Amino acid sequence: MSKKIKIIPLGGLEEVGKNCIAIEYSKDIIVIDLGVGFPSFELPGVKWLLPSIDYLQKNKKKIKALLITHGHLDHIGGVPYLWKKIGKPPVYATELTIAMLRDRLQEKKIYGVKFFQISPKQKFRLGANFTITPFHVVHNIPESVGFVIKTPIGKLVHTGDWKFDKDPADQPPVDKKFLKKIGDSNVLALLSDSTNAEVPGKTLPEKEVGNTIDSIVSQAKGRVIFTSFSSLISRIHQVFDICKKHKRKVAIAGFSIIQTVELVKKLNYFDIPKGLLINLKDIHNYSDQDILIIASGTQGEPNSTMTRIAKQEHEKISVKPNDTIVFSSSAIPGNELLIQKVMDCLIDQGADIIYKPVLGAGVHSSGHACREELREMIDLVRPKFFIPIEGGNRMLAEHIKIAQSQGIDKKRCFLLNNGETIQMSQNKVTLLKKKNLTPLIVSGGKVKTLKRNIIKERLEIARSGVCIINQKSSQKIEILFLGLFVEDAIIKQAAKKAKKLLKSHGKNKKGRREIKKRFGDYLLSKIGKKPIILVF
Amino acid sequence: MSKKIKIIPLGGLEEVGKNCIAIEYSKDIIVIDLGVGFPSFELPGVKWLLPSIDYLQKNKKKIKALLITHGHLDHIGGVPYLWKKIGKPPVYATELTIAMLRDRLQEKKIYGVKFFQISPKQKFRLGANFTITPFHVVHNIPESVGFVIKTPIGKLVHTGDWKFDKDPADQPPVDKKFLKKIGDSNVLALLSDSTNAEVPGKTLPEKEVGNTIDSIVSQAKGRVIFTSFSSLISRIHQVFDICKKHKRKVAIAGFSIIQTVELVKKLNYFDIPKGLLINLKDIHNYSDQDILIIASGTQGEPNSTMTRIAKQEHEKISVKPNDTIVFSSSAIPGNELLIQKVMDCLIDQGADIIYKPVLGAGVHSSGHACREELREMIDLVRPKFFIPIEGGNRMLAEHIKIAQSQGIDKKRCFLLNNGETIQMSQNKVTLLKKKNLTPLIVSGGKVKTLKRNIIKERLEIARSGVCIINQKSSQKIEILFLGLFVEDAIIKQAAKKAKKLLKSHGKNKKGRREIKKRFGDYLLSKIGKKPIILVF
Repeated sequence: MSKKIKIIPLGGLEEVGKNCIAIEYSKDIIVIDLGVGFPSFELPGVKWLLPSIDYLQKNKKKIKALLITHGHLDHIGGVPYLWKKIGKPPVYATELTIAMLRDRLQEKKIYGVKFFQISPKQKFRLGANFTITPFHVVHNIPESVGFVIKTPIGKLVHTGDWKFDKDPADQPPVDKKFLKKIGDSNVLALLSDSTNAEVPGKTLPEKEVGNTIDSIVSQAKGRVIFTSFSSLISRIHQVFDICKKHKRKVAIAGFSIIQTVELVKKLNYFDIPKGLLINLKDIHNYSDQDILIIASGTQGEPNSTMTRIAKQEHEKISVKPNDTIVFSSSAIPGNELLIQKVMDCLIDQGADIIYKPVLGAGVHSSGHACREELREMIDLVRPKFFIPIEGGNRMLAEHIKIAQSQGIDKKRCFLLNNGETIQMSQNKVTLLKKKNLTPLIVSGGKVKTLKRNIIKERLEIARSGVCIINQKSSQKIEILFLGLFVEDAIIKQAAKKAKKLLKSHGKNKKGRREIKKRFGDYLLSKIGKKPIILVF
Repeated sequence: MSKKIKIIPLGGLEEVGKNCIAIEYSKDIIVIDLGVGFPSFELPGVKWLLPSIDYLQKNKKKIKALLITHGHLDHIGGVPYLWKKIGKPPVYATELTIAMLRDRLQEKKIYGVKFFQISPKQKFRLGANFTITPFHVVHNIPESVGFVIKTPIGKLVHTGDWKFDKDPADQPPVDKKFLKKIGDSNVLALLSDSTNAEVPGKTLPEKEVGNTIDSIVSQAKGRVIFTSFSSLISRIHQVFDICKKHKRKVAIAGFSIIQTVELVKKLNYFDIPKGLLINLKDIHNYSDQDILIIASGTQGEPNSTMTRIAKQEHEKISVKPNDTIVFSSSAIPGNELLIQKVMDCLIDQGADIIYKPVLGAGVHSSGHACREELREMIDLVRPKFFIPIEGGNRMLAEHIKIAQSQGIDKKRCFLLNNGETIQMSQNKVTLLKKKNLTPLIVSGGKVKTLKRNIIKERLEIARSGVCIINQKSSQKIEILFLGLFVEDAIIKQAAKKAKKLLKSHGKNKKGRREIKKRFGDYLLSKIGKKPIILVF
């Protein structure tokens, strides 16, 4: 039997989020990333989406390691929920990533994970068949890596989330020479981040973002309220430096930012000069020009600090007309309206908002390579086969167009779905039949199978409301409406109508069906809605 | 008593959509536009948002006319619902706008509207105090106008939705000389469209969009499926011309596009050569290269043609691997995820998608002026006072920054909320106390007051589900779950638990409260959810 590599995407394709890819050779499997996905408004009551781990559960014994590329939730968030279920594999990651994952595990009271700390260019073996060389990539969280995975039949390169920032803030740029050398040695397949495959040009260097923020802070006449992603440690570091330079005190607001600053202190990530950081409750002891507040809540999340400030519900911060509010962030797709609402409320209170679209073009840089960078990566690595990962089909398809324009034949590019396994020998690639995947979610703190019919029912009751007819006795009928506004006069009339219907049709199965139908039509004519009707 | 103008925005500020502004002088009121707003996922079960008409209802008798700038729903959609309530004023609009509004009115069976057809530069008087001069503007629907409103104390300019397209497809460009002349004659206030105040540069000329589509169609190896906004008649006209040139037959799919083509024929809007338009069911009689389908559904709407094609549910169209699918459109904020899902499904079936972000940058042009155009409008009109309209606060604030950079003092720029009346004499402006507005919606075909607590309840039941405990007799208990997945074993156990709770606490008010609390905790521990609990 000739040996083959299988590449099994279990999450992060057809979508942005819940990244997870398994790579199998003979009796060895390695898993790269185990993230969560962010459910949209179409999935009410769902906290997280999880990768589908059917295949990993069936092949637990083969799993030699879980490798993590970096500490973002869409790469580590699934570990607390799924690590036990896939056979408790050892976890390989960089120091910061381990620290962040430890926090997540502790939160969920998961103990016993065996960690191996890895560093760029420090090779290690896994099982009988894999040699892994992590390599440093720049991303919007420090200590991100990609992996060169050497197997008996060739090398794979998995980029993780990356960009070629020529001037990053507190880390070196990506070592392109190293990638070129890897490329010289014949790469069988490249798996590369497609998030920004639709965005022309190159990402803005992080140091330039710093310069823009510096000029905003130096010109601000009042306080600066600054919000960014809490794991964007390089950005937060730059803001601390800028405040030091302009003699502003820094106060922090919001759990996730506080957590980041704690981590920075614990790992000695950067130096926070004494006296620079003040307690949020003390901001009123300083004049406005001497204050910058770093707050969490870039996405308009309902209970975040920025949202509470916008709604005038924050206990310590209320907007002043001279405030400059900087959104050093971008919208996660689906959050556009929430963010706009928050910004609109802040403007209404007289603040000046600086954010990406216009003047603020310089206040944020994405963590993901844009088209010119993606092109260069393909040129450096020159793989035989190309598999775009991390993105909806639209992004994956664009990424393949880029690869084609760099000379990789379309036949050697693969737009995979989750569960679609690709099997490679040195010269041949076979697409195996798509595996059935069980869609998993976290809801109420528990891992559950996503039931589409339940979600449909939830959306339906939200759209139409519920009406309950409860017959207490043959004479007494109670009608209750959920999610519906019905005037008292109509409620009384409706009770009479229901009593009549119950009398004529009875409460057996057929009778109930008839009552529901007729009462539904009645309500439609009276209140313009046909809710879900329950008869007791 | 010195006379003053009141400008009363009733919709379209703090938001995109449901445009409506009233202008009052002495005993005369004119109303400009009466549109609908598009509810987001935060308002389940709501069909449309409507402008708040409290003030118009109170002052019905003063209303001399409803002026409509153009035929988009966010400008005409409220008329069928509100026209009677505001005293049935006569409606002034251009021919096409009237035709479109007539269709809407007929749909809702509203008769008796008195229409006055207007034309650019044809002055007319309204009441004792207003002289109106409509002027042609370019927008993504033909026959759009703005208004110069002459009053005894000065001129107002209301732009409607506009852009300075230097090369529009089937209409002349905006007459800048006319605007300059108006500007020369002292304009008291300019009210200008802010939708794209965050977008740098200028809009792409519509003819260039046509050229791009031409080259896509000429290069397409198989069928072309083309989707755009159904009211974008110029674009549809261009597509017909392109198909004629390249000898492709045109088939149309989807109610709204069919309606547009009917209207085009009825008004003789442009010539459709004989034999060019074929029946959708006949597409299979032609080879793929000879077919272009214009389909509706740019926004991923659940039952639209494009969505049904994507879901493989369309009875006449299924994707073929050589299809080129062109989205000649942009996302209405809030629809991004729905659109992406549709595109992803189409790609999955092997289609090549061309849309805005990357290669498709040329396949759509917005109907709203971008920053450079907004700047030029302000320079031409040179108003004393500036009131940005049509946009969320963020856009309005950006528009004011543009006005300032063109020399209009910040004190003479007004960022208004809906209901915030501005009162102007020749030299003085007063901001009146904000009026209380009743938020109106359409739900179940009826105009209703938006009840925030009902919406909150709907979202809550969608998130948490509902559990109903029904005590049929002292021994028999039925438990029912809505929007929750609960295994049979747990349902049985839960019934026992409920029976016990009912026995100990009874069903009076206090007892029920106690049962709800305890049973909620019980469910939380068992299924990880605390639903809304009802006890009968």
